[in-house]
Amino acid sequence: MRIGIFGYGNLGRGAESAAHLSADAELVGIFTRRDKTKLESAVGTPIFGVDELLRFKGDIDVLLVCGGSAGDLPKMTPALARHFDLVDSFDAHERVKDHFDAVNAAARETCHTALISAGWDPGLFSLARAYFGSFLHGGLNTFWGSGVSEGHSDAVRKLDGVADAREYTIPSERAISIARSEESCVRALSEREKHRREVYVCAKDGADIPKIDREIKTMPGYFAPYDTSVSFISAEKMRDRHAEYPHGGCVIATGKTGTKNEHFHTAELSLRLSSNPEFTACVMLSFARAVRKMSAREEYGAKTVLDIRARDILSDEEDLFGLV
Amino acid sequence: MRIGIFGYGNLGRGAESAAHLSADAELVGIFTRRDKTKLESAVGTPIFGVDELLRFKGDIDVLLVCGGSAGDLPKMTPALARHFDLVDSFDAHERVKDHFDAVNAAARETCHTALISAGWDPGLFSLARAYFGSFLHGGLNTFWGSGVSEGHSDAVRKLDGVADAREYTIPSERAISIARSEESCVRALSEREKHRREVYVCAKDGADIPKIDREIKTMPGYFAPYDTSVSFISAEKMRDRHAEYPHGGCVIATGKTGTKNEHFHTAELSLRLSSNPEFTACVMLSFARAVRKMSAREEYGAKTVLDIRARDILSDEEDLFGLV
Repeated sequence: MRIGIFGYGNLGRGAESAAHLSADAELVGIFTRRDKTKLESAVGTPIFGVDELLRFKGDIDVLLVCGGSAGDLPKMTPALARHFDLVDSFDAHERVKDHFDAVNAAARETCHTALISAGWDPGLFSLARAYFGSFLHGGLNTFWGSGVSEGHSDAVRKLDGVADAREYTIPSERAISIARSEESCVRALSEREKHRREVYVCAKDGADIPKIDREIKTMPGYFAPYDTSVSFISAEKMRDRHAEYPHGGCVIATGKTGTKNEHFHTAELSLRLSSNPEFTACVMLSFARAVRKMSAREEYGAKTVLDIRARDILSDEEDLFGLV
Repeated sequence: MRIGIFGYGNLGRGAESAAHLSADAELVGIFTRRDKTKLESAVGTPIFGVDELLRFKGDIDVLLVCGGSAGDLPKMTPALARHFDLVDSFDAHERVKDHFDAVNAAARETCHTALISAGWDPGLFSLARAYFGSFLHGGLNTFWGSGVSEGHSDAVRKLDGVADAREYTIPSERAISIARSEESCVRALSEREKHRREVYVCAKDGADIPKIDREIKTMPGYFAPYDTSVSFISAEKMRDRHAEYPHGGCVIATGKTGTKNEHFHTAELSLRLSSNPEFTACVMLSFARAVRKMSAREEYGAKTVLDIRARDILSDEEDLFGLV
């Protein structure tokens, strides 16, 4: 499977490492919008400018599109789906439908297969919610963290007087206990109960610290619905203690069965990741295998992980009747 | 979705309760090989003899085949697949390929869709092993229990002098800790390390107790590879303390990523079930929804859960772009 990587930020670097470690992936090249002469690959992958991409049309089986969901992917993925079979990890939940429609139009018109939102959430967690929620009819809760949310970190970085910021989403152990218990069948957990947010800010010289603190804690959607703590730290501390991107989370479902509702069940999927972008890239690369097979079967258009058959990500058909 | 249930043992009763609780399932009837006049449904489901099944051909959308894997399903499912779209939960791992081939021939010839091995293991755990094993390349371990294994209980019941028996499979907490740790990337856990077995036996009058004890502990495949304890108990104790069928288990995968293998990840699916047959039946009923859609699309033949798209088990298409 010949893989191209579009974008060379954290996710692109994760994709490079995933392809490098994979037995059946050959890395054709990385395509960057930045000055390629200033970038170097730790494993010797050729780096090209994005303007060189189209001459690799016949040489790349699947393109891993490693842009950000906020600004990059809404334009990038539909444009690239006109020329390549691809996978992205678009994660702005509320705009997935629009993204799907734009990618679908481009991919169908040009006979490509384009899988969107194929990370761990949305992605693997979507599959868990679909299956668990179908089997069990009690509680269905998703928890994220502890881990760095790039979306929330970016929202803080945009505030006046902020030089750098890091946000950690932290799930409540108490809420997780409730989600696993019979109580979850009878009441929904509120957003505030489920997670709290910890923000580390590196302020610019002369910045209005109390104003930044207030603006973060009252930011609608991002922080206002949660208990949020804000700490102001030095650039050195930011570099030394907050350079990694750990993440994780869990999907927990419960339900009762039996003619008298006498039996109780819990299903749980959990992830503990020491690098969010590297794991996300592993998921994208696995699904690239399915994209390639679907494209060969002329199953064109935009797809989500809910459209994928697990057998299409197996590299070894032997696993099929051992049922893996 | 009009559902028929074939077989009225523990699994069949679980299927009845699952269909009874489901918003989109209508229970047409239960078909039993036993004397139907001696059976009663707790929720008023009509009970028929198996000889009456064929006159319901047009009235049942999907048949849930609730027989045992050892004796029933190898003949039952291929025979029924000639007349119905169906789901079974065949769980004899080493014979899945033969079962698939027999069911596939019958279903293809008569244009039916027949999903086999659709419980939690094989089934949901097969999906977890497929996805996890594709994303991560370190350890991949499955643990079962604590719970009653019907296969192992049956193996003991067949011994001379045994009136009744119950086997509990108990995973080792220590082995689970290793499976979650980096150690799992460098060494495989042995069968003996992963599980122990507890057997409760109700012996017949005058039975040779030491002989039964020895025969159990040395039984190849079933008990010899494990640390096994055997307790002889009264019929009253068996009835009072061992009437339930709890089970559960987990699939744990680990892997390292990064160009220097510097990041470590863990993915885990776990189930805690207070009734194994009732949860298994919930899984079968959910997959029946997919079988019905696949049959309508003329996707005939035998299928496994690895051939299913999650969107086909969704009852609400709204979930699709919320990515559930």
